[in-house]
Amino acid sequence: MPPVLHGFDPTLLLVLNLAGTFVFGLSGGLKGVSARLDIFGIIVLAVVVGIAGGITRDVLIGIPPQTIRDWRYLAVGVAAGVITFAAHPALKRLERPILILDAAGLALFCVTGAATALDHNVGAVEAIVLGAITGVGGGALRDILVREVPVVLRSGLYAIPALAGAAVVAIAVESGTRNLVWPLVGAAVCFAVRMAGIYFDLNVPTASPREDET
Amino acid sequence: MPPVLHGFDPTLLLVLNLAGTFVFGLSGGLKGVSARLDIFGIIVLAVVVGIAGGITRDVLIGIPPQTIRDWRYLAVGVAAGVITFAAHPALKRLERPILILDAAGLALFCVTGAATALDHNVGAVEAIVLGAITGVGGGALRDILVREVPVVLRSGLYAIPALAGAAVVAIAVESGTRNLVWPLVGAAVCFAVRMAGIYFDLNVPTASPREDET
Amino acid sequence: MPPVLHGFDPTLLLVLNLAGTFVFGLSGGLKGVSARLDIFGIIVLAVVVGIAGGITRDVLIGIPPQTIRDWRYLAVGVAAGVITFAAHPALKRLERPILILDAAGLALFCVTGAATALDHNVGAVEAIVLGAITGVGGGALRDILVREVPVVLRSGLYAIPALAGAAVVAIAVESGTRNLVWPLVGAAVCFAVRMAGIYFDLNVPTASPREDET
Repeated sequence: MPPVLHGFDPTLLLVLNLAGTFVFGLSGGLKGVSARLDIFGIIVLAVVVGIAGGITRDVLIGIPPQTIRDWRYLAVGVAAGVITFAAHPALKRLERPILILDAAGLALFCVTGAATALDHNVGAVEAIVLGAITGVGGGALRDILVREVPVVLRSGLYAIPALAGAAVVAIAVESGTRNLVWPLVGAAVCFAVRMAGIYFDLNVPTASPREDET
Repeated sequence: MPPVLHGFDPTLLLVLNLAGTFVFGLSGGLKGVSARLDIFGIIVLAVVVGIAGGITRDVLIGIPPQTIRDWRYLAVGVAAGVITFAAHPALKRLERPILILDAAGLALFCVTGAATALDHNVGAVEAIVLGAITGVGGGALRDILVREVPVVLRSGLYAIPALAGAAVVAIAVESGTRNLVWPLVGAAVCFAVRMAGIYFDLNVPTASPREDET
Repeated sequence: MPPVLHGFDPTLLLVLNLAGTFVFGLSGGLKGVSARLDIFGIIVLAVVVGIAGGITRDVLIGIPPQTIRDWRYLAVGVAAGVITFAAHPALKRLERPILILDAAGLALFCVTGAATALDHNVGAVEAIVLGAITGVGGGALRDILVREVPVVLRSGLYAIPALAGAAVVAIAVESGTRNLVWPLVGAAVCFAVRMAGIYFDLNVPTASPREDET
């Protein structure tokens, strides 16, 4: 059985994965700026956020993490950190763009994560969870590192889209079709649900009174 | 050499493991409630706490994590989260039951964790540590995710019982006996020491003045 | 191809690794004291800080973590915790020695970490990153566990020396030389840069106004 994303051009897949790493890296870098880290901390956070989801997925599948062995992912993460630092003054108060970049990365990674899991003979339910972890893992670690409760815990409208996007891929593959439209649909579903969620989110009770010291 | 827990009925072992996942999941869900997470966050936290210890053990042994590949563990974790959310108003102020549920899960997991480690040719000392990690890993991650110092660090009366329960199993196996009474004794020892510790704990100096903002 | 550190006496390497685990353990124990953990928490933190970097490296390479399977590392970590606890009153206000011990452990681990990575056919860039992770992983986890932003994020003068030390080893090996002077040079470079950084650090803007509650 060929890989789930077999029909896609390998170069396109690589570019997409690097792009996802880059936008997650920007999200990490922006969080580093808002936590007032110096340039080194911002770069480290950008790299970590960019590659942590995929690494967690690979560890959970039980295969050697791929991104840590590929200097291009590391380079893209560093670039995201440097760019974030350079654009620091302009980006400082942009909380909303962080969420949108997160949504784009989330859509990319939940689909490629689910595909990778399915390629390693993981069941459909588990592939959905692993796809979601690929998407949310970087952001969760980002928040832990700057001592915030991970956004994935604070709002289901972060986990739900990742699960939905991964589910589209997993259900399609389990149904026997490897039509390449489904990964695209999965990514679109994830992004749309997440974008809708960002607005709906405003009305969901989340913050704890206990956390007002943050 | 058959597995350490070979003589136990496989269905019984599965039920016990799922039960342990469930009570840890409740513990995670209750922490999510007290941290005022929404239902999605509560479910995620329940699943994470339920399976994190076993996953950490498997990663440290160097085998593919089993629970992430078994939808039943995921389903039980989700169920624990949903039930916690539904019982939310009644459970909100129940700090003590969280500890008792933790103790039960701790007893189950330190024994099965040590047995799994021994099945993979790990030495006795290491199996004890891995058994304890299986027991305390979920709770530690739970606390980290809601920004508390892990209970395992705040009180030795959490790590000690897990080590004791795992030690009973490891010592028995290293002594050449695979009598199934020893895993039961190990679980009982862990639970009893932990329960005793909860009371003794009241007199151990733990909290830092620095942490009074929590 | 023999291992990178092949020419070193195996016993010497073991002793150095155990020594690195010990000083990292002291660093962890001292952090536990300053966080007012009890003796059990201090021991757990000492063990975790001592072995976490190497375990993270092994997981990222995709090999079974070695230190968790070797009771000597566990014993050294426990010893570091006990000694820290015993010296508790005298060490309480010694923030500077924590940093110096960290620097020594950092120098040891970034070199052995890079060497281990190179031994597993990881590329030079990735070996540098893995060497740095071996050095900074323990300290990062230490800080997360006591709810501080990891020092590696707060100051590039922590990550930079680890990267520099690992780079010396990786570049030497990639250049075809396995002269044993290079690991020594790498460790010296890491230690010197880190020591210099501790002073320079005083003038780098790091702390966030938001974190003044810590």
